[in-house]
Amino acid sequence: MSIKLQLAFDVITTDKAILVLEELEGLIDIVEVGTPFIVEEGMKPVKEIRKRFPDQTILADVKIADGAKIEAKSAFEAGADIVTVLALAETQTIMDTVETARAYQKKVLVDMLAVKDIPTKTRELETIGVDYICVHNAFDIQSQGKNPLDELLILKQHIKTAKAAVAGGIKLQTLPGIVEAEPDIIIVGGAITNAADMRSTVKKMRKIMEAGGCFRC
Amino acid sequence: MSIKLQLAFDVITTDKAILVLEELEGLIDIVEVGTPFIVEEGMKPVKEIRKRFPDQTILADVKIADGAKIEAKSAFEAGADIVTVLALAETQTIMDTVETARAYQKKVLVDMLAVKDIPTKTRELETIGVDYICVHNAFDIQSQGKNPLDELLILKQHIKTAKAAVAGGIKLQTLPGIVEAEPDIIIVGGAITNAADMRSTVKKMRKIMEAGGCFRC
Repeated sequence: MSIKLQLAFDVITTDKAILVLEELEGLIDIVEVGTPFIVEEGMKPVKEIRKRFPDQTILADVKIADGAKIEAKSAFEAGADIVTVLALAETQTIMDTVETARAYQKKVLVDMLAVKDIPTKTRELETIGVDYICVHNAFDIQSQGKNPLDELLILKQHIKTAKAAVAGGIKLQTLPGIVEAEPDIIIVGGAITNAADMRSTVKKMRKIMEAGGCFRC
Repeated sequence: MSIKLQLAFDVITTDKAILVLEELEGLIDIVEVGTPFIVEEGMKPVKEIRKRFPDQTILADVKIADGAKIEAKSAFEAGADIVTVLALAETQTIMDTVETARAYQKKVLVDMLAVKDIPTKTRELETIGVDYICVHNAFDIQSQGKNPLDELLILKQHIKTAKAAVAGGIKLQTLPGIVEAEPDIIIVGGAITNAADMRSTVKKMRKIMEAGGCFRC
């Protein structure tokens, strides 16, 4: 199994994000245009990254809560390959997101933000036919010491047809445990974008991922 | 009591929205830059509407789900007076949105999208100290015939310190019933922006609102 590394851009400008991607070229599987970035700049960063890196997989973290067909269309038309929808949205909203993704031959990642009952929600989401289910430790509660690993282990026990993703404050030090739980996508933001040497940090992360979580192999 | 009329812009460009506001000048209490509009253009419409209409109350429908301090800051710095947060977000996210609003002397509207237990959630939100609680019939389930009036009546029974808002497919025909329930803010989108004569439609709506819901007074 090969785990994919997703780099999340949250507080950044389009120009700066492109410079970061140039520095990290060849090392990032999925580029995430994060929610705060979308709130500030809309679909512009998705369009510009698509233009500069035609073959790069791009996720637009729209966190759709309603108006799924309109918002998913915006993301796919801008050049995104994956759009996100909130697990807590109405079931119809998640269904509409999947339907729109199918029409564009694109994918849907469901953000499990604030979901309490992961097993039940995972079953519901797999019935709808979503592509990825992402356990996500909210940024706003990361200082409370919650670890996305606990939720990832629960997700991995129950997920059958969808792929598993994990996000929420993951850094070099916590990466080995996450890798051992074998998610399909690991999402990292600040631990890369705030690193003094981004390229060296990402290379270390990829080494841990390739070694199946072993820190010093 | 004077009910405020909020006009929601969802699928529109910044230039077109400004033309609509020029046509409706003096008739709209709160201009909403809707979520799909933000997904497409980011904070640009908030900034441009603020520039063109310095005294207009503007709501940025960010529907914050996480990263509250960052996203609320984006909205307030762009010129918004009110920002929205999802009722279903983590409690800390709602608290952070309120804290950021207080720092800017601005307001928070909580979107009750997909909330099942309105009384309990209303109590929780009033404990946090939010300004507005908005019952909201999701756009994606409006074709299922759900009416925001039912939820508004429940909200009005339980709300004490916050103000009540209502959204979700409200049009001229359903407005009288909504007005009789006495919310503080009524949010209308397509029923105004898709009207053949927007100014006349809004004037009819304001007449119903001033007459306390009476259709032919």
